[in-house]
Amino acid sequence: MRSFASGSHLTRPAATRPPAPATPISTPAAVRKLFPALAESSEVYLDSAATTQKPVPVIDTIHRYHSSRTANAGRGTYPWATSLTGQISRVRARTAAFIAAEHPDEVVFTGGATAALNAVTLSWGLGALEDGDEILYSPRDHASNVYPWHHLRRMLARFGRHIELVPYRMTELGEADTADILAKLTPRTRLITTSHLHHVFGGLTTLEELRGSLDPSVLLCFDCSQSGGHLPVDVTELGADFAVFAAHKMFGAPGTGILYCRRSVHDQLLPFLPGGNSGVQLTDAGLVPTGMPDLLEGGTQNIPGILALGSALEVLESFDVGAIAAHNRELTLRLIANLRQVPGLEFLPGPAHAPCAIGYGILSFTLAGISSTDLGFVLSELGFLVRTGAHCTPAAADDGADSVRVSTHIYNTLEEIDRFTECVMTIAMEVR
Amino acid sequence: MRSFASGSHLTRPAATRPPAPATPISTPAAVRKLFPALAESSEVYLDSAATTQKPVPVIDTIHRYHSSRTANAGRGTYPWATSLTGQISRVRARTAAFIAAEHPDEVVFTGGATAALNAVTLSWGLGALEDGDEILYSPRDHASNVYPWHHLRRMLARFGRHIELVPYRMTELGEADTADILAKLTPRTRLITTSHLHHVFGGLTTLEELRGSLDPSVLLCFDCSQSGGHLPVDVTELGADFAVFAAHKMFGAPGTGILYCRRSVHDQLLPFLPGGNSGVQLTDAGLVPTGMPDLLEGGTQNIPGILALGSALEVLESFDVGAIAAHNRELTLRLIANLRQVPGLEFLPGPAHAPCAIGYGILSFTLAGISSTDLGFVLSELGFLVRTGAHCTPAAADDGADSVRVSTHIYNTLEEIDRFTECVMTIAMEVR
Repeated sequence: MRSFASGSHLTRPAATRPPAPATPISTPAAVRKLFPALAESSEVYLDSAATTQKPVPVIDTIHRYHSSRTANAGRGTYPWATSLTGQISRVRARTAAFIAAEHPDEVVFTGGATAALNAVTLSWGLGALEDGDEILYSPRDHASNVYPWHHLRRMLARFGRHIELVPYRMTELGEADTADILAKLTPRTRLITTSHLHHVFGGLTTLEELRGSLDPSVLLCFDCSQSGGHLPVDVTELGADFAVFAAHKMFGAPGTGILYCRRSVHDQLLPFLPGGNSGVQLTDAGLVPTGMPDLLEGGTQNIPGILALGSALEVLESFDVGAIAAHNRELTLRLIANLRQVPGLEFLPGPAHAPCAIGYGILSFTLAGISSTDLGFVLSELGFLVRTGAHCTPAAADDGADSVRVSTHIYNTLEEIDRFTECVMTIAMEVR
Repeated sequence: MRSFASGSHLTRPAATRPPAPATPISTPAAVRKLFPALAESSEVYLDSAATTQKPVPVIDTIHRYHSSRTANAGRGTYPWATSLTGQISRVRARTAAFIAAEHPDEVVFTGGATAALNAVTLSWGLGALEDGDEILYSPRDHASNVYPWHHLRRMLARFGRHIELVPYRMTELGEADTADILAKLTPRTRLITTSHLHHVFGGLTTLEELRGSLDPSVLLCFDCSQSGGHLPVDVTELGADFAVFAAHKMFGAPGTGILYCRRSVHDQLLPFLPGGNSGVQLTDAGLVPTGMPDLLEGGTQNIPGILALGSALEVLESFDVGAIAAHNRELTLRLIANLRQVPGLEFLPGPAHAPCAIGYGILSFTLAGISSTDLGFVLSELGFLVRTGAHCTPAAADDGADSVRVSTHIYNTLEEIDRFTECVMTIAMEVR
């Protein structure tokens, strides 16, 4: 099983710079066979930004955990248990390598990306922020990168500590507006949080334009829920202090998230959801941290979820994440080109508005004459599974800005895109 | 598949009052076949308090989620997604019935029991506690019911709000000392937290002796991680305001916990780990609660874990939880009777010290002349998988109080117990 899309002639986006895949193309049928839910179905799955389909090695790993030598990890001293402890440690090292973290102890396993972002606010924000400090964020980001900050502000305010959440704009390309961020930086700015790949707009934000202008004490937090496994993510290159990933959006299982915490912030962290095997010690002064990543990991972990993540990373690497990015780009560009012909169709911000050919596997639009919800129902009836609504964007929900979102992955084909866009064209002609 | 132990002549513990099972006994071989990890192994698994083995229906449910119509829940409007949303809602209703909650919206799904106990401290404690308020707890409880409270105290102290964590004693039976609790109640007591079934001592605490003496404003929090699925738990009868369960200790998968929150406390709760699909709305005043249980559930849930919990409850009900309790009692009493003959063996607090015949499937001991760790290794070599160490008990860790813990479930047999205790006897004779 090797790269599916390595034959793509399209150049890759500069911001991600994947290495050129060097191996022959797998056939779409072979790829599809790796994902049983697709192999058995005639539906076209275009909702990978909600969750990706699961490949056989991931399914097998989970099955094996529950069917053979099932035990808890990090506790028992018998081989069933100690073997799991070792396996989790290897997945941590593999994850660190996958996201280009310098040290495995910078990788924390959480219950999901949402829990991971809340860990940033509860473990770092609650302890580190002072009265008058400012956080820069986008109200158009996913709720998981908006609500935790508002919750934090409210909690701090209860105790008489007031922080500012300063909103910045998004560009027409669906990226963070770095000029606006620069204009809003103040000496009180403590952290900038952004999606790496926006979950609705499909625009990529690397904040590289800010390099050199930022005081090194301003921390950077990237929500990589959509970019992880879709394009190469290098947390060190991004300059991330925190970065968050959702295993279930990178071929893994729901219930497991990754929180990257750069070592330089470790001494600013409070415990997160402490319990059995937490990296804390109970002293007369209360809980005292004893080490990362355990400081942010308490209780029985989602063992099958973590082992499944290991298998998911193996599958992603076997495809070559650069090749996956190239494939998603090719699909997105075809999607844009085809949908551009559809009368009454309007693209939300994103790569469709870019002067150059970019695309990362996520694209959203509206169609005149039909609500996005109705359009989604019709498309579903016709076998195309897309997401409609406000897509967990708090600001969009306020605007009533529903849309249809199409999101792709390695198992989607140009032929599926063509069938999908033909279908949208037919509906557009009918509702005119 | 029906009750395994319904032929037991032993009376059941009064505190749990399970209904009498009415169906014929399944054979041990048939029960074992239901748990593939045991069927394939010659080891004797005596560590169910760490995690239980997984029955076929649970394994199949998880496999099905990942292999067929995989989607996210609560978001998409296509059938793959909406079907999952409906299934989760049915598991919630089934869970409510299983623990005798009055309303499904009192059942919150979390990432685990540890996350659930932290939800009590972060969602209730952080908002509801005032300067000078007191929490009664046992330092000999599991770390997950100790650390969150200490973490809460420290967080509040950072903001100049001081609460007291008042420790109460455990009895020789391994139960909460209710006389000590009564003596330590003050007008500032806001909550009493306890394990329902103690994870090392195996004593059952219902706090029923406190009924009538407690001001109704004093909340009760039960950690039912060890009792859930091992004996009938009725949160309404317990008078619980909060109760916590670990799916993986009741035949389910790691990564899913249950938090019971009685409706009467709903208006005291802050959001917990908010994100996509949280029960909150963003207003000018910040996040405003919109409803339970979503207020405490944000982000993509552990969908396969929740569906697996549904299957786990079905299996538990097919056995009859009362019959499981009777079976565990029989095994525990045999364990006590046999181990009583072993020279140099000392029981930790628990049912072994009770004047009457009680037992709930958990028993811990030490053996003179050999450390518990070494004893555990020897037992493991001989095919008996038990837990050794401090068992995530902060106070025990301070005392250096290591022990061997034996814990049983429906798949264990009297014959296994006899083989185990013979083995301990042999070791005891050798180390004398």
